[in-house]
Amino acid sequence: MLKANPEKIRALVTEIFVRKDVPAEDAAVIADALLDANLTGRASHGVLRVVAYVDRLEAGGGKAHPDIRVIRESDTTAVIDGDNGLGMVAAKKACMLAREKAEKSGISCVVVKNTNHYGAAAYWTEMMSQEDMITFSCCNVAPLVAPPGGKDVALGTNPLCVYVPSASHGPMCLDIATSTVAQGKLFDYQLRHHELGVGWAVDVNGIPTTDPDKARFLTPFGAHKGYGIACMIEVMSALLAGGGFGKELNDMYEDIDKPNNLSFCFIAVKIDRFRPVDEFKRDVDRFIDYLHSIPAAEGQRIFFPGEIEIINREKAKADGLLLPEDLVEQLTGIATRLGVENVEEYFRM
Amino acid sequence: MLKANPEKIRALVTEIFVRKDVPAEDAAVIADALLDANLTGRASHGVLRVVAYVDRLEAGGGKAHPDIRVIRESDTTAVIDGDNGLGMVAAKKACMLAREKAEKSGISCVVVKNTNHYGAAAYWTEMMSQEDMITFSCCNVAPLVAPPGGKDVALGTNPLCVYVPSASHGPMCLDIATSTVAQGKLFDYQLRHHELGVGWAVDVNGIPTTDPDKARFLTPFGAHKGYGIACMIEVMSALLAGGGFGKELNDMYEDIDKPNNLSFCFIAVKIDRFRPVDEFKRDVDRFIDYLHSIPAAEGQRIFFPGEIEIINREKAKADGLLLPEDLVEQLTGIATRLGVENVEEYFRM
Repeated sequence: MLKANPEKIRALVTEIFVRKDVPAEDAAVIADALLDANLTGRASHGVLRVVAYVDRLEAGGGKAHPDIRVIRESDTTAVIDGDNGLGMVAAKKACMLAREKAEKSGISCVVVKNTNHYGAAAYWTEMMSQEDMITFSCCNVAPLVAPPGGKDVALGTNPLCVYVPSASHGPMCLDIATSTVAQGKLFDYQLRHHELGVGWAVDVNGIPTTDPDKARFLTPFGAHKGYGIACMIEVMSALLAGGGFGKELNDMYEDIDKPNNLSFCFIAVKIDRFRPVDEFKRDVDRFIDYLHSIPAAEGQRIFFPGEIEIINREKAKADGLLLPEDLVEQLTGIATRLGVENVEEYFRM
Repeated sequence: MLKANPEKIRALVTEIFVRKDVPAEDAAVIADALLDANLTGRASHGVLRVVAYVDRLEAGGGKAHPDIRVIRESDTTAVIDGDNGLGMVAAKKACMLAREKAEKSGISCVVVKNTNHYGAAAYWTEMMSQEDMITFSCCNVAPLVAPPGGKDVALGTNPLCVYVPSASHGPMCLDIATSTVAQGKLFDYQLRHHELGVGWAVDVNGIPTTDPDKARFLTPFGAHKGYGIACMIEVMSALLAGGGFGKELNDMYEDIDKPNNLSFCFIAVKIDRFRPVDEFKRDVDRFIDYLHSIPAAEGQRIFFPGEIEIINREKAKADGLLLPEDLVEQLTGIATRLGVENVEEYFRM
C-alpha cells in the first residue's frame, strides 16, 4: 500500500477528468465524491472507479457535457433529466435543489432519471443535510440480486442512505446496499475458494449455497425484507422519475458504451419545522450515548450507524490515505496517457 | 378454528370499546384497523389485541378520551401530541392531516408523540394513500432487539411500511418489523423446544444461538443493516417528535398502567407532482409483471411486497375469518363482562 496525500489525489483525479473534457467544476465534484468514499473506508466506491468512468466517457456511455434539465417542478418536488452525464454532476444539482426546496417548504423530494452511477450515497446526503436537515437518498442499479424464490437476478444492490446530524457525537449515517454482501466480496471468496457465509448467495437453480464454486447470484439482505426494500427503492427512484428499471438498466463495467440508465431519489426534511434544531441534535447525542450504554458481548463493541466511517475519516486525515499499488499504477497509467505532467508528484505525501 | 363473519366481529369489537367509554367513532376506527390485520393475515396485530387494549384502558395506561392536539404545524409538516390515547385514534388524525398537506403541498411529514400502539402499519399507509399517493409509516416500540455485538436489548421491533398504488395488480405494500423474526415466533419455538433459525436470536452473553433454551434476545434482520434502519426509525418517530426512545418506552403487555410512550411518523408523497398518476400506476403494474417474470426455483413462487396479504384478504372476504377457539372465548368473556347482549350472535356467519 502507498500512503498518499488526499489533497494531491483529489487534484490528480480532477485533472484526469478535466483532460477528458469534463468542466473543471464538475471534475472537482466527481473527484471530491470519490475521495470521500476512500477517506470513509468505502474504497469500493472510491478512486478505483476513475478508470471505469474514463472508459465510459470514451466509449460513449457517459457525456462530459450533459444537458441536465429540471423537467417538472413544484415548491417541494422536482424531476430532473440527467441526460446521461456522469452521475455525480446530476446528483449535486439534485441535492442543491432538494435542499433549497426543503429550506423553503420544510420537506422536499427530487428525483433524477437517465443518469449514470453517483458513487457512495452518503456523500450526497451529507451535502444535502448541512447539519440542519435529515436527508435520504436511494438509487436503482443494474440487476445482481435474485429475489427470494428466484433463480435469476431481478434487482440491483439498490442502496439506501439516511443522514442525521447530531450536536457532537455523530452524524449518524446509514449507507447500506440491499444485497446481503457486495458482489466484490462474493468474487473475493470465489477467487480464494473460501466457504461463503450462510445466506449470501444462491446457485443457478436458486438454491441457497455456501459453496463458492456453485454460488451464482447475490441474495437480498434479510431475505424478503431486503427484497421488499429494494423494490421500494426501484419505485422511489425509477418509477417516480419515469426512468428504466430492472433489466432495462445497463451494467457499470460491461455496457460502457450505453448509459447506465439509472434513477436517483433525494429527500430532505428540515428539522426546525418539528423542533428547535439544537434540541433535536442534543437528543441525537443522547440517543448515541444510549446505544453506547448497552452492554457489549465479550470482544465486541456497539457502533451507531456511520460511526465506523467517522473513525475511518479521522484516521485517513491524520495518517494519509492508503492506496493499493495496482490502483496507483492504474491512475498513473491513465494520467500519463492523458498527458498529465509530473504524475509521480501527486503520489508524494 | 371458528369461521366468523368479519362484519359481525367488527361490530362486536366496536361495541366492546364503546362500553369502555371510547367515543363510537374512535371505537369504529380501532375495530376496523384490528379487523383489517386479521383479514390480511397479520393476526398478531388483529383482534387478539382487544383484551390488551381493554386492560390498558382499565389500568390507566391509555385514555378513552385523549386530548389529541397539533402542537406545531406548517404547510408540509405537523407534530401531534397523542395524549396517551389508544394509538389508532392519533394515527387516524395524523394520516388525515398528512394526506391533506400532501394534497396541497406535494409531500408531507406528520409525527406523533405520547401515544400507544397503532396496530399494523399497513392499515395507515393504505388509508393515507387513497391510491394517488406513495405513503410511508414507521414507529418505535419498547426494546426487544439486541444491537449487533450487544448482550442486552436496545431497540424495539420498530416497523417500517411503504404503500404504492398500482393500476390493477397491486397495491405493493411492504410492512416489516426490523427484527429477524417476531417475538411470538421465538416464544413458539421455545415452547416446542424446536431449534431456531440461524441468526434469529442471541443468548444472555450476546452470542448467536439456535438453541431455543438459550435464546434470550431477538436480533435485527440483516444484522447491522436492520439495526441501522431501526435506529433511523427511532430518529424519524421519537427524535423528530420529541418523544421517548429506547428504554423510556413501556411494554405493551407488562406496563399496562403506564402509557407505551411511543412515537409515529407518517409521510405522504403525491404522485402527480412527478408524473401523471395513471402513467405511474401502469408502470407499477409493469414492474410487478417484471418481478413475476423472473424464473422461480423449483417449488417456489416470486411474490411482490404485499401480494400475500392481498391473497389473504380476498380469501377471508370470500370464505370468512378463521378465529382460534381460545380467542373466541376471550372475546366472549370480555363482551359478556361488559354487558354486551346476545354475544353468541356475533360469532354466527
